[in-house]
Amino acid sequence: MSATLDNVRIVLVETSHPGNIGGAARAMKTMGLSRLWLVRPQRYPDPQAEWRAAGALDVLDAAVVVDTLDAALADCGLVVGTSTRQRRIPWPGVTARELPGRVAVEAGGRPTAVLFGREASGLSNDELRRCHLHLQIPANPVYPSLNVAMAVQVVCYELYQDLATRTEATAAADVWDRAPASVADVDAFYVHLERLLERVDFIDPANPGQVMTRFRRLFGRVRLDETEVAMLRGMLSEIERALSGTEHSGPK
Amino acid sequence: MSATLDNVRIVLVETSHPGNIGGAARAMKTMGLSRLWLVRPQRYPDPQAEWRAAGALDVLDAAVVVDTLDAALADCGLVVGTSTRQRRIPWPGVTARELPGRVAVEAGGRPTAVLFGREASGLSNDELRRCHLHLQIPANPVYPSLNVAMAVQVVCYELYQDLATRTEATAAADVWDRAPASVADVDAFYVHLERLLERVDFIDPANPGQVMTRFRRLFGRVRLDETEVAMLRGMLSEIERALSGTEHSGPK
Repeated sequence: MSATLDNVRIVLVETSHPGNIGGAARAMKTMGLSRLWLVRPQRYPDPQAEWRAAGALDVLDAAVVVDTLDAALADCGLVVGTSTRQRRIPWPGVTARELPGRVAVEAGGRPTAVLFGREASGLSNDELRRCHLHLQIPANPVYPSLNVAMAVQVVCYELYQDLATRTEATAAADVWDRAPASVADVDAFYVHLERLLERVDFIDPANPGQVMTRFRRLFGRVRLDETEVAMLRGMLSEIERALSGTEHSGPK
Repeated sequence: MSATLDNVRIVLVETSHPGNIGGAARAMKTMGLSRLWLVRPQRYPDPQAEWRAAGALDVLDAAVVVDTLDAALADCGLVVGTSTRQRRIPWPGVTARELPGRVAVEAGGRPTAVLFGREASGLSNDELRRCHLHLQIPANPVYPSLNVAMAVQVVCYELYQDLATRTEATAAADVWDRAPASVADVDAFYVHLERLLERVDFIDPANPGQVMTRFRRLFGRVRLDETEVAMLRGMLSEIERALSGTEHSGPK
């Protein structure tokens, strides 16, 4: 199977019906994917999941169950969230058909996570903020509500049609000189940045507004590499050191 | 919704699990399709079908249940059968992605039927012989076994991506001067042809072999129009009349 397909993980967030977990596992295997992550599944394991998985029990058995979305994303280079809603702040988007090209070029050898939300309510705004790209499956505007396992099937189908035949040479068209930063490293930068912005009263912790969301959108588009994150962290530390010097010398 | 999408009917043949019927109805509606036909469903109606249909109960309620595949195909201009198997006699094929282009050009204003077979065994060889095109969803060769409702989702997804945006002008690129023959008319021609071929001992009814399959494949590729079928029928009748004259004048 293609190395790129093997690098894509399907992340189901708080799935309520175990049949959908099994259906997603089967959908993945038919398209050559095998990395399934489950964030707080409501009923799992469950015989319904096994029944719907059919010949993909191996994918189900190897599924990684975690308590937090962070745990599912920490080592990823690219995070994509499925979404049908329009959000208040527009976000970089991609259609299911465009996804494989972005994965091939932007994931940079790290895992790509594709997130699928709850049956009733999808992904939360906070979860969608964690994504570099929002993925849309163009659908009937009157009823765009694909079942979650069906959405997994369509996305995996598109990944397989493209990536199974894409050569390493094609995928390497946009090779970068540094490894892409992991989600965990970039998150640590955001925490650091927010701490600084609160310290300088740019953000009011009691009423933070959209500042951090806009910073996530900004840096999410850049697809930071490891060196750049280290540089940004160093900058923040230097500013903090300078501020401490100022503060030591007197009240603000 | 697009006139072309409205002209595509999804035909499920002897589906054994009602959940798959409901899942197929939902998959269709998300992609703007609404014509569902059920040939001898094993359990239907059934609460499981309704549950899985979710917001597509209207599609389910309007489903046409029939006893024979003939009844589902009689007025169609183009018949496409999903298949994962390689058959003894190769057949004109199309991928899911290529399907919309063929529907737009070849259906000629008549309904297109896309057939999906049984969960365990798919479509029979006899059913596949009835199809102008065999449709493949490219998939993992190790496990290409998509659930039937998932296959409906992928096919409807491809139809929607293309046909919802295709203009009448594009669709009319290959306009023909005569209406395409209906499946029922062409079938009547095959029956007539077979009767003649048996009469002249070209086919042994006790051991018919592949002759009629090869004729179906031949004429299926041509996509006969109404005038051509009338002409072929006239020719067969003339031959029969001439044979009767010969037979009357003495034993063969």
